[in-house]
Amino acid sequence: MHTAAAVADFHTYPLISALTHLERLPDQLRVQWADGRVSPFHYQWLRDNCPCPQCVYNVTREQVLEIVDVDEDLVALDAHIEQGLLCVRWHGGHTSRFDPGWLRAHAYDDESRAERLAAKPKSQLWDRAFEWPVFDYAALMEDPAALLQWLLALRDSGLTHVRGVPTEPGSLALIAKRISFIRESNFGVLFNVQSKADADSNAYTAFNLPLHSDLPTRELQPGLQFLHCLVNDADGGESIFVDGFAIANALRDEDPEAFRALCEIAVEFRNKDRHSDYRRLAPIIALDALGEVAEIRMANFLRGPFETSVAQMPLLYRAYRRFIAMTRDERFRLVKRLNPGELWCFDNRRTLHARNAFDPASGARHFQGCYIDRDELLSRILVLQR
Amino acid sequence: MHTAAAVADFHTYPLISALTHLERLPDQLRVQWADGRVSPFHYQWLRDNCPCPQCVYNVTREQVLEIVDVDEDLVALDAHIEQGLLCVRWHGGHTSRFDPGWLRAHAYDDESRAERLAAKPKSQLWDRAFEWPVFDYAALMEDPAALLQWLLALRDSGLTHVRGVPTEPGSLALIAKRISFIRESNFGVLFNVQSKADADSNAYTAFNLPLHSDLPTRELQPGLQFLHCLVNDADGGESIFVDGFAIANALRDEDPEAFRALCEIAVEFRNKDRHSDYRRLAPIIALDALGEVAEIRMANFLRGPFETSVAQMPLLYRAYRRFIAMTRDERFRLVKRLNPGELWCFDNRRTLHARNAFDPASGARHFQGCYIDRDELLSRILVLQR
Repeated sequence: MHTAAAVADFHTYPLISALTHLERLPDQLRVQWADGRVSPFHYQWLRDNCPCPQCVYNVTREQVLEIVDVDEDLVALDAHIEQGLLCVRWHGGHTSRFDPGWLRAHAYDDESRAERLAAKPKSQLWDRAFEWPVFDYAALMEDPAALLQWLLALRDSGLTHVRGVPTEPGSLALIAKRISFIRESNFGVLFNVQSKADADSNAYTAFNLPLHSDLPTRELQPGLQFLHCLVNDADGGESIFVDGFAIANALRDEDPEAFRALCEIAVEFRNKDRHSDYRRLAPIIALDALGEVAEIRMANFLRGPFETSVAQMPLLYRAYRRFIAMTRDERFRLVKRLNPGELWCFDNRRTLHARNAFDPASGARHFQGCYIDRDELLSRILVLQR
Repeated sequence: MHTAAAVADFHTYPLISALTHLERLPDQLRVQWADGRVSPFHYQWLRDNCPCPQCVYNVTREQVLEIVDVDEDLVALDAHIEQGLLCVRWHGGHTSRFDPGWLRAHAYDDESRAERLAAKPKSQLWDRAFEWPVFDYAALMEDPAALLQWLLALRDSGLTHVRGVPTEPGSLALIAKRISFIRESNFGVLFNVQSKADADSNAYTAFNLPLHSDLPTRELQPGLQFLHCLVNDADGGESIFVDGFAIANALRDEDPEAFRALCEIAVEFRNKDRHSDYRRLAPIIALDALGEVAEIRMANFLRGPFETSVAQMPLLYRAYRRFIAMTRDERFRLVKRLNPGELWCFDNRRTLHARNAFDPASGARHFQGCYIDRDELLSRILVLQR
């Protein structure tokens, strides 16, 4: 049993509980469910969400009604349950019918909201003991179920390893496009990580790179980063990873004042070249609406001079030093040398990555990388879960 | 007179005032300038910003020193002024030299910080009387000075018009690339705005579209939007623009409670298709760190059902209705029909755009559009200003 709306948004809403009783109040309808829950729905909300073909264009599944075109004091002339649906007849003549599965999924009583919040995916924090999930290239290219498992691991753990990848340059694009289009940057669509004489980033030298996120110089750091090994004959150059969320949470426990400083004091990151000049001022740790750690922005080699008040400067240095010291702490660090035909794919806004120095005289080393935004990861997961 | 650092970041720092006096305190150096200003610099800060080739790799202009490798209690053994430069000799043997122009530009005493803040570009708000700036395609393609004027107008006013654009499909990409690469989306690199039978957005119908930003369904809404007219023989379809910042500021004055609700209560925007399912939960008005209006996120046809507490729902509807009513208010609205060979380029996160319904039976209508992120606009401005 689906209304147009339930079909239109590509989801089905199972019947959790039937509608049993309705009570009309001056500005809202109180709906009682068979399992005893009571959900108030304001008349404005119900009219706004009318799924009829006059209010929602069924080809695009987008609303054509604008609620401002409806009277602010609109009330229901009548509300009843009809073949299990909520049926509301409005003053002025319009009638709206709501599927009870859809209605329950969008109820905004405290209990329903808390239930949905609890069902949201949570980050699984990790440390040096983490056995990162390993996926097989061929399966990811062919099997939507394997693809979904990979993407869920990226969303929840933020670090994955893929084996059996072809070593022809450019083959990274094939697997990236299993998720979506690639996010271009000034370094290209695919970027080549090789030691270069005219390097425009320390990434393109043979130096060690401290733990960092890529493109902290942009308003939106890329969500996913891929690093694909084509050739690795040089001594050194091991990959290192830490869970930035685990470190931030440990800092929150161990030194709350330092944690707050990194959440509140904005730091500028800069990357400059002959043809570009990117700058972004933002805190190192970002929290979500619930106060959970949601993003780390960090690259010492791209950082500009700190600018905060004279009074706060010592605290900012103390907090920054502490955070960097923690990224160097063995308890958090994974170290692995990547072999040709393997790739890392990780959450660039969470999992900080580093590289040991390598010796370019000892042999060739060629990695390719690219980025995909988090929007694309989450969209692909939702489509695969349909 | 430049140090390595001043050259390395592609900027020159004019000498505002000479260094006249230095005083060593336990954790900081107090610098006095010829114009009387006093700027404290903590030893950590000075050491961290040492521009010598040992601390900054001069090919990439990126720091190789990590401050955590320096003693937290590091003090200056000596500080003096040498040929106008600040010269600091550190405990442990390192010496740092700072250009006074660079130092003044990065001083963090209250006066210096307030001065820099006051110098930041401000949005110029507009209403129906706005005479939007008009630029000539040929000049933008050839003349860097004209290009810079256009980009500054985009940054500060958020709405520009370009004439004399070729009407061959795809020619939009040529002018967009004067700024940077184009941001791809699920609608393509360039998207075609035409009425389609299998529309995956109301944009691809002949409907009127209410005032909106594009891609509010993404974490980062595109910074710039281009709309290029190739053919416009259909009746109707006029472009409408409002300054979303002007409306938000008017709302703040006229109904502070409604303004706060739109800043604080997150709303979900959704766009779903057979191959994608984008969702983003965020407030309609975003403020910057100083409390100024920094972004509008709005598209009624992409909005999901409101979800907030039962107590707040009436306030959210009141605020939303008020905002939408203001976007319809004649005092804010510009209306113009675009002709072939003309394009709009506007700040998609500020300038809301709309389209009147058009009659596809009356003639052909073909627009092309694309997006570029704000990072790229600001980078190109900085490069052109060098």
